[in-house]
Amino acid sequence: MLATLLAGGVDVCFANPGTSEIHFVAALDRFEGMRCLLGLHESVVVGCADGYGRMAGRPAATMLHLGPGLANGLSNLHNARRAGTGIVNLVGEHATTHLHLDAPLNSDIRAIAAPFTQWSKTAADASSLAQDTAEAMAAARSLGGQIATLIVPADAAWGPAHRGGAPLKSIPLDGVQETAVDHAARVLRSGEPTAILLTGGALRDEPLRLASRIAKKTGAKLFAQAFNARMERGAGRPPIESLPFVAASAMTVLAPYRHLILVGSKAPVAFFAHPGRPSVLTHPHCEIHVLATPREDGPEALSALAGALNAGGSVDITPRVALRSPRGTITPQSLGEAIAAAIPENAIVVDESLTSGRSLLALTAHAAPHDLLQNLGGSIGVGLSLATGAAIACPDRKVLCLESDGSGLYAPQALWTQARESLNVTTLIFSNRAYAVLKHELHNMGVNNAARASAVLELDRPPIDWVGLARSFGVPAERVETIEDVHAALIRAMHTDGPALIEALF
Amino acid sequence: MLATLLAGGVDVCFANPGTSEIHFVAALDRFEGMRCLLGLHESVVVGCADGYGRMAGRPAATMLHLGPGLANGLSNLHNARRAGTGIVNLVGEHATTHLHLDAPLNSDIRAIAAPFTQWSKTAADASSLAQDTAEAMAAARSLGGQIATLIVPADAAWGPAHRGGAPLKSIPLDGVQETAVDHAARVLRSGEPTAILLTGGALRDEPLRLASRIAKKTGAKLFAQAFNARMERGAGRPPIESLPFVAASAMTVLAPYRHLILVGSKAPVAFFAHPGRPSVLTHPHCEIHVLATPREDGPEALSALAGALNAGGSVDITPRVALRSPRGTITPQSLGEAIAAAIPENAIVVDESLTSGRSLLALTAHAAPHDLLQNLGGSIGVGLSLATGAAIACPDRKVLCLESDGSGLYAPQALWTQARESLNVTTLIFSNRAYAVLKHELHNMGVNNAARASAVLELDRPPIDWVGLARSFGVPAERVETIEDVHAALIRAMHTDGPALIEALF
Repeated sequence: MLATLLAGGVDVCFANPGTSEIHFVAALDRFEGMRCLLGLHESVVVGCADGYGRMAGRPAATMLHLGPGLANGLSNLHNARRAGTGIVNLVGEHATTHLHLDAPLNSDIRAIAAPFTQWSKTAADASSLAQDTAEAMAAARSLGGQIATLIVPADAAWGPAHRGGAPLKSIPLDGVQETAVDHAARVLRSGEPTAILLTGGALRDEPLRLASRIAKKTGAKLFAQAFNARMERGAGRPPIESLPFVAASAMTVLAPYRHLILVGSKAPVAFFAHPGRPSVLTHPHCEIHVLATPREDGPEALSALAGALNAGGSVDITPRVALRSPRGTITPQSLGEAIAAAIPENAIVVDESLTSGRSLLALTAHAAPHDLLQNLGGSIGVGLSLATGAAIACPDRKVLCLESDGSGLYAPQALWTQARESLNVTTLIFSNRAYAVLKHELHNMGVNNAARASAVLELDRPPIDWVGLARSFGVPAERVETIEDVHAALIRAMHTDGPALIEALF
Repeated sequence: MLATLLAGGVDVCFANPGTSEIHFVAALDRFEGMRCLLGLHESVVVGCADGYGRMAGRPAATMLHLGPGLANGLSNLHNARRAGTGIVNLVGEHATTHLHLDAPLNSDIRAIAAPFTQWSKTAADASSLAQDTAEAMAAARSLGGQIATLIVPADAAWGPAHRGGAPLKSIPLDGVQETAVDHAARVLRSGEPTAILLTGGALRDEPLRLASRIAKKTGAKLFAQAFNARMERGAGRPPIESLPFVAASAMTVLAPYRHLILVGSKAPVAFFAHPGRPSVLTHPHCEIHVLATPREDGPEALSALAGALNAGGSVDITPRVALRSPRGTITPQSLGEAIAAAIPENAIVVDESLTSGRSLLALTAHAAPHDLLQNLGGSIGVGLSLATGAAIACPDRKVLCLESDGSGLYAPQALWTQARESLNVTTLIFSNRAYAVLKHELHNMGVNNAARASAVLELDRPPIDWVGLARSFGVPAERVETIEDVHAALIRAMHTDGPALIEALF
């Protein structure tokens, strides 16, 4: 299994092993080249694999302990699946002779994996394990990136295997549909108000330039999804606006358009339904057109469309401007400005700042060029782990993790892995000491002065001491209460090796 | 839903809500009597419900956010199911009109719940919700305690409901099988070496007295399972030995017996298989006899058996002896002695101390009478949450949580709920800074000096500062490095209100 992984270019494994995986752990010292990183909780393990996969462009493996270990990682598998990240999960299982005894940790692992994995298989024995591993790797690499789960009975792991698995071809993204290209070109030439909604591979620099040329040529408006797996943006790159998270705002932004052309995206819908409000965000008169489905090659489709439209002109580029950090109190606005001024060249920015960060995207649009990684599945708490995995994939880049306190509290254990591996991750905690998004929901329902309801949504009794929490995991930390101090702390962290955490109180 | 829960005696809800559950949250202020407690992670939420259910003898509700929120709680649902604890999970779902849009948080919630729940249902609409809730409560109370999962679409929660659900009868444990009683009596009268293996309700004081009389009358040996949901033990109670966790030790202990009579227990098997070693712990010549299956009434069966054997004599009782705390360095042995001397009358002891705590049970057998709660499912990390829930159920009792550092790091967030609710929980961390159980496994495999393997099993680089971690969540904490200090800290904590954490380094 190890030899097959290494031969196939999977050389990073995020792990939280147990007894049933101990033979894999023992094998680490017999094979050169596998980097095995410990996470204290499986949500960290899986979230790291997601962040790694997004930045490395190839899957990491995870090592999970039986059904309960897999279960602990499921919510971040949900997020990774929504992000289209390829991951090879290696889940230990009881020895086949032990299964019928229903030992305490026994569970139906395939059923547990099923809702969250596109491919799964239980290795029959040691002789098939290597080839099963090759299959899992091919599945993880297929269709742009999938969740593949290989269940490894302990006796398959401890039995003799004689050779590695033969590499298998993954299934590429589907090619461009000529009719879709022609159709999109016709829509764009119609002169009717049209927007193009991009996500996935279409949000990298090159395809964005194509999209920008198409927009310039036809007058179309470009949007990115509200949340994206990886977006290249900032100064020197084509500007692109993201759809707002708040449904009413997204509807306002989309209202003028008679046509929406999808590139790798699905038709935009509200995160949640609300009584009496529409779930579909486009105007009822807006026609949806699919240039590329999520399983088709978006960049190639943009290239074909640019060709069809003869859109070969110049590209709008976000100019480099001197950004200055503001002064005074910490507000979402001033935080965004301070962050924009502090983002270093070629940084990786992980954004799970939720309510506090809603103005962030506009404010950081002119920052130094950076990659932006977001949470697509909505299961909060993946930010710190995404940042950790991204730092493993890109050791020469600075990672800035913008995290809300509510989200960060799901898996603060990721900080320990950052400390352990001396990763260049700076975490900025937006410490508003509440599940603010839910307080807004309650307020929007017209519920006010509801003491018991509010008590379930506040994180201030007692307040969480993020500085103490980070230090307890070995990450240097400081608390800041003015925007000058936020900026200074960010700049300091960006010029220091290793992890750091800044708690911005507001 | 709330009215039905309250009318049926479910008045504690552990919650981590989201937007789709906001109507339930808002309703808390319109109905008197529901205590809703926030957990920062769903594994805390579910673990608390488990601890509460074991001590209160009736189910708590949980409030979980869609499929990913449920997924985060699954590993502790696994543990609760193995413990036979009744829990009513209330899982929010998208509004039925929103489902087909496959919004980011969409998932197949029933499929996610299926491997871990004995009962599940999706409420059709607001008019059926109350009766569905009554059904869920009856299911959670059935057969001694089950996991029941009610999926609540947002529109069922926000629509009008006109009345509470009518209470439904739960399914009681099956009655005693006369033939099983007669058979067990015959075995016990045979004079052949016989042991009785108890768990579940049979480990409370009264049924233990019956078992003790049976043992005394027949010469049988009593064993408890290696791990049990709730065991009443200590001075003034019938003594009972637990089977060792380590398979080889359990086999040695069981080797002399020609018969094993099960009371609520399954035939004992190894936690894990190992190459070339048996998985079944009883001797090949040992016959297994079932007095009561896990879904039969163990205490009633013991009563019938005592009657059949005319076992009405005196009961062996653990004597009260003066326990003194040892002096010197911290070792598993001295820790056990210090703990035994510190356990106050009528305490609740949660034990997830794993390797470090293997000698604990023998050493605390003479401690003041207490309830012992353990992890039956083997998915580590439930200890702190179990203790939290037990303290909610029994506010007048002291809770002592014995936790290994590796386990505690899965869900330290439970400490925050302890601080928030000022719970009388003292946590003692067995800080050996390693996944020691896995290091033993590696050693047993004959793998030594394996640097990469060891690196995945050590928690010392950097060491976790448990004192800082606890304080960051609002729990007073101290670190101790001698056994005198362990004992003194324990005694201090037992005489102080509110939570405390003691990190015992060794």
